[in-house]
Amino acid sequence: MVRFALFGAGFIGQVHGGNLATHPHTRLQYVYDVNAEAAQRLAGRYGANVARSVEEIFGAEDVDAVLIASSTNTHADLLRAAIRARKPVYCEKPIDMSLDRVKAVVQEAHDNPVPVMMGFSRRFDPNHRALREAVRAGEVGVVEMIHMVCRSAAPPPLSYIQVSGGQFRDQTIHMFDLLCWIAGQEPVEVYATGSSMMDPAITAAGDVDTSMLILKFADGALCHIDNSRHTGYGYDERIEVFGSQGLVESRRKPVREVALYKGSKVVEEGMFAGWFERMEPSFLLAVEAFAAALEGRAGAEYPTLMDGLRAQMIAEAAVESLKRNQPAPIEYWQPA
Amino acid sequence: MVRFALFGAGFIGQVHGGNLATHPHTRLQYVYDVNAEAAQRLAGRYGANVARSVEEIFGAEDVDAVLIASSTNTHADLLRAAIRARKPVYCEKPIDMSLDRVKAVVQEAHDNPVPVMMGFSRRFDPNHRALREAVRAGEVGVVEMIHMVCRSAAPPPLSYIQVSGGQFRDQTIHMFDLLCWIAGQEPVEVYATGSSMMDPAITAAGDVDTSMLILKFADGALCHIDNSRHTGYGYDERIEVFGSQGLVESRRKPVREVALYKGSKVVEEGMFAGWFERMEPSFLLAVEAFAAALEGRAGAEYPTLMDGLRAQMIAEAAVESLKRNQPAPIEYWQPA
Amino acid sequence: MVRFALFGAGFIGQVHGGNLATHPHTRLQYVYDVNAEAAQRLAGRYGANVARSVEEIFGAEDVDAVLIASSTNTHADLLRAAIRARKPVYCEKPIDMSLDRVKAVVQEAHDNPVPVMMGFSRRFDPNHRALREAVRAGEVGVVEMIHMVCRSAAPPPLSYIQVSGGQFRDQTIHMFDLLCWIAGQEPVEVYATGSSMMDPAITAAGDVDTSMLILKFADGALCHIDNSRHTGYGYDERIEVFGSQGLVESRRKPVREVALYKGSKVVEEGMFAGWFERMEPSFLLAVEAFAAALEGRAGAEYPTLMDGLRAQMIAEAAVESLKRNQPAPIEYWQPA
Amino acid sequence: MVRFALFGAGFIGQVHGGNLATHPHTRLQYVYDVNAEAAQRLAGRYGANVARSVEEIFGAEDVDAVLIASSTNTHADLLRAAIRARKPVYCEKPIDMSLDRVKAVVQEAHDNPVPVMMGFSRRFDPNHRALREAVRAGEVGVVEMIHMVCRSAAPPPLSYIQVSGGQFRDQTIHMFDLLCWIAGQEPVEVYATGSSMMDPAITAAGDVDTSMLILKFADGALCHIDNSRHTGYGYDERIEVFGSQGLVESRRKPVREVALYKGSKVVEEGMFAGWFERMEPSFLLAVEAFAAALEGRAGAEYPTLMDGLRAQMIAEAAVESLKRNQPAPIEYWQPA
Repeated sequence: MVRFALFGAGFIGQVHGGNLATHPHTRLQYVYDVNAEAAQRLAGRYGANVARSVEEIFGAEDVDAVLIASSTNTHADLLRAAIRARKPVYCEKPIDMSLDRVKAVVQEAHDNPVPVMMGFSRRFDPNHRALREAVRAGEVGVVEMIHMVCRSAAPPPLSYIQVSGGQFRDQTIHMFDLLCWIAGQEPVEVYATGSSMMDPAITAAGDVDTSMLILKFADGALCHIDNSRHTGYGYDERIEVFGSQGLVESRRKPVREVALYKGSKVVEEGMFAGWFERMEPSFLLAVEAFAAALEGRAGAEYPTLMDGLRAQMIAEAAVESLKRNQPAPIEYWQPA
Repeated sequence: MVRFALFGAGFIGQVHGGNLATHPHTRLQYVYDVNAEAAQRLAGRYGANVARSVEEIFGAEDVDAVLIASSTNTHADLLRAAIRARKPVYCEKPIDMSLDRVKAVVQEAHDNPVPVMMGFSRRFDPNHRALREAVRAGEVGVVEMIHMVCRSAAPPPLSYIQVSGGQFRDQTIHMFDLLCWIAGQEPVEVYATGSSMMDPAITAAGDVDTSMLILKFADGALCHIDNSRHTGYGYDERIEVFGSQGLVESRRKPVREVALYKGSKVVEEGMFAGWFERMEPSFLLAVEAFAAALEGRAGAEYPTLMDGLRAQMIAEAAVESLKRNQPAPIEYWQPA
Repeated sequence: MVRFALFGAGFIGQVHGGNLATHPHTRLQYVYDVNAEAAQRLAGRYGANVARSVEEIFGAEDVDAVLIASSTNTHADLLRAAIRARKPVYCEKPIDMSLDRVKAVVQEAHDNPVPVMMGFSRRFDPNHRALREAVRAGEVGVVEMIHMVCRSAAPPPLSYIQVSGGQFRDQTIHMFDLLCWIAGQEPVEVYATGSSMMDPAITAAGDVDTSMLILKFADGALCHIDNSRHTGYGYDERIEVFGSQGLVESRRKPVREVALYKGSKVVEEGMFAGWFERMEPSFLLAVEAFAAALEGRAGAEYPTLMDGLRAQMIAEAAVESLKRNQPAPIEYWQPA
Repeated sequence: MVRFALFGAGFIGQVHGGNLATHPHTRLQYVYDVNAEAAQRLAGRYGANVARSVEEIFGAEDVDAVLIASSTNTHADLLRAAIRARKPVYCEKPIDMSLDRVKAVVQEAHDNPVPVMMGFSRRFDPNHRALREAVRAGEVGVVEMIHMVCRSAAPPPLSYIQVSGGQFRDQTIHMFDLLCWIAGQEPVEVYATGSSMMDPAITAAGDVDTSMLILKFADGALCHIDNSRHTGYGYDERIEVFGSQGLVESRRKPVREVALYKGSKVVEEGMFAGWFERMEPSFLLAVEAFAAALEGRAGAEYPTLMDGLRAQMIAEAAVESLKRNQPAPIEYWQPA
């Protein structure tokens, strides 16, 4: 049984809180949020304690691990505090918006190793995971091309877009992580281009809402990713890996398997309304992986802080490429 | 919040116990099982009380409703006790193996009305439910033909088959209920035939393992059901409704949406390993429907004791038809 | 090169005429029709000769084989004439409406063997054929259940229904042939029931338009067939074979593989408008099989006169069962 | 009835020859090939004449149109001869390998207009065509992203690759034409990258075998195309159009609709073995479109010489981008 303290009682904090409270191997011990009322509400629902300060949590003996689901600008400090307190930590992405601060955290974790899991929950989607297993098992031979589709049903609030660092840093970053995880290698170059087609306010915020990227691996393999901030048909995320001997794909998942045949058409149920409806089960599986690792049980490998760093560095190169409309090399910084 | 006492801590009792304990509108208050150790284990996991006797439960003030998931031969007595104690009751099917005892219970409930829900959880499967909504909304016009497929991945233990009353009474009964619920009317005649193809022990038990039935409605609409006690490919349950203007189907649900293209073939993920893996989410939805009704919240209509009686009477006619290899009329007894 | 004379220049005669004229191994040499103008039109299109009489064809030296696509009441006489003239013959189903006349033809062919192919063209549908190959290769183990769906988009003209012998003799007969061909054995009993739901004129003609049958094999395997004279969604013909180790199905074939995702739905292309649009390619494949056999080339086995007899005898039992609402044994007459 | 002379009796010439000979509105009048034997064989099969020279054809009064299916280096001269002889011409792509010669032909056709159809037969694929109709009808709203997949089952002979001008000029060119036809506008910039992963001989020939391109339209819409010279699973060509209100896709087309359920998997029939097996029906539909236009019948619009020029100019820009690893502007030359 792993006793967790949770930072953040917002939307994603509530998701994690519920999972930590009901999972047979975890317990929701403390909740902290700058909004004390929100913390109280969440803690109350599951019989957890409300922490009055961050320090209370890191000093508590009945806390085995922490989960950081608070706003992005708090991640780095909380990560460092957890590292210093020797508390294993599950942290939502990204590490920080500033690459310098990211490097500082990574360096500190390198010097004082504690289990750190980055919340790349898509790795735990059963479809994506089965695709990756097929690829790693050589089912498609040598990987030659990868396709990733990542399309939100609707844009996030403009206020979020203004601080998120842009489409590559907040949306595509999940794909960057999945890409490396699936391919078993890191891309060396990226070309990114995009447009702002749907909302002048997004243009004004300096961001694109419709983008395509081509990433190149050292062995010549290519990856294409497309992103959109809206669709007319729900949330759409798919992956296709094309190899020398075959192709494997993680397809669209329909909400229901019901079809109506009428006239010359067949009408089937479509996609999930949003990313959360589609990806919800992966959050519990992600927590399970971390709990299993901390308890020494067999479980899925989890994404680390270095994986978080890697995905962010790809995003940086993509931003650079977009700005200059030229392919950009991707540099991978390593802690000393 | 509806406080439930649970009878039965076996497999299906554990499923209900977990749902009652974690659903936001229900609480698992007591567990009772003739196997006290099993009751203790289940109650302990969720902080519920162990009842030492049936009477303790029906006399308890902190019990708002009961859920009967104990063995079939206890259902009728527990139902009657609940009716007398004015406790709403959720009861797993069937009501009883003896039609006389079934009628006695129905009569008693008729005379002393208490909310009684029969555990026809398949009504809460989202696929089946969407199909039914399409039919009831007239999407396919007048219903002319219905197809139902109900195939277990593997036979139940022989000991169960020997007391279950046969394939129609224990397996097809779910389809009989779904059929009436979807069609909005009751069949008037049934022809049933079957074979024992897979295991001489099933033959020796006097049962069939492979069967087909045709049911006829008063307006001429026809329904076909097939049943098998095993498949070579997991659990397979499907429904298709053909009407004067179109067709709607509740299709197979794959475990994952992953496909491998290789050579001249595409290999996709198949079916769930068993009925429970496939139908698990419907149990929670069923409990939610009952809780909503008891609390006066909006929710799905639930199957009643009369629905349980009806399904059993169709099963009786099917057994009769199988025995005589002739179509049999279906008679619907009503409480006076 | 097999030189064919064609009897019948109606719809199906025109289909065969075009195939015989353009197939690299056949030639359309003569066309005969009681409607001389229709014969002339068809012959003219492909540079074939018009025969002035049936006798002219059976006496012609430049005729290697005949294809009978004229009206049903001419089949028996033409078949006998062909047998006597030692001309191989491809004959559309049925042999004749009278079972006595059918037996007489079969007996004569038995006494004077000539290659006779019955036009069960559905055996040449690539989907059905692949299904059968899987079954015969043991891919699904021992066959336990078969499902066949046979639903016309729209009823034939009432004038046809009045003389066709009813739904089992004109529509289901294709399924009876496919069933034996796939199962590799013959059913021994049939239960048939039906309704007349769509058109009082069909009722008045003494026929059903909506029907279901269960056929039983000696080893206990069961087959279900449903039939409809109309659908709201085009032509629907499917087969599913369930065995002890798996299931194989010949699925619906969409007109096009195009899908529109919009809102919460996916709209795909539906079914072919009618049986001919769906089954058209199988007619050429059927002619190819017969030509190959006559030329001694490797080719698909073709359905024989005995297969035609067998299918008709199953239809007779089905008609009997429908009339008496009881299962009927199926008797297979053999030529002496 | 349009009487055609055919240049070229190789593989694609034979396909066209058969179609011209059997289509009800066209006749195969002459065949010419530098290989007189090949011309004789093809003409003989359909009762056509063998032309002894190119001049004979352009001087013949019984030739209404010509179809150029000879080797690429003959296209320009034959096109010019046809234009001068006022013979409508159906020409396989490309116009010529040299852009200067292409421009000269286009200029001449501009000055002396004759109907010229470029053999972009994929426009006539029923799936692609239905997709385009949905897009043009506004079903998906404003087009924002397009995806095209174009993967050959196996590379062409090395001798062909050495003279074909590379993957973009011989393979992707079909996609460039489809793209403009579907989008109703022309891309203004292209970024192309590629690798040579499968065969050192292709590398030695200076070509790539695995490539990805991003094309940008003036309104910000983006298009991605991927190409491969081999797959492990047959021919794969797909298109997906994502718009502001929905998505439409021209999906993979399976060879047969047959599925085997066994164990935890479903095995379905895969893709066509090669591009020709997949695209064969579109060749006849393409000829029909041209014949209809020449006869003044209603029919599908056909791709013109200007469309051929446009696709080649996009290919030139793509080659330039690949060489320099930078996005390249696309320039569209117009005849004066």
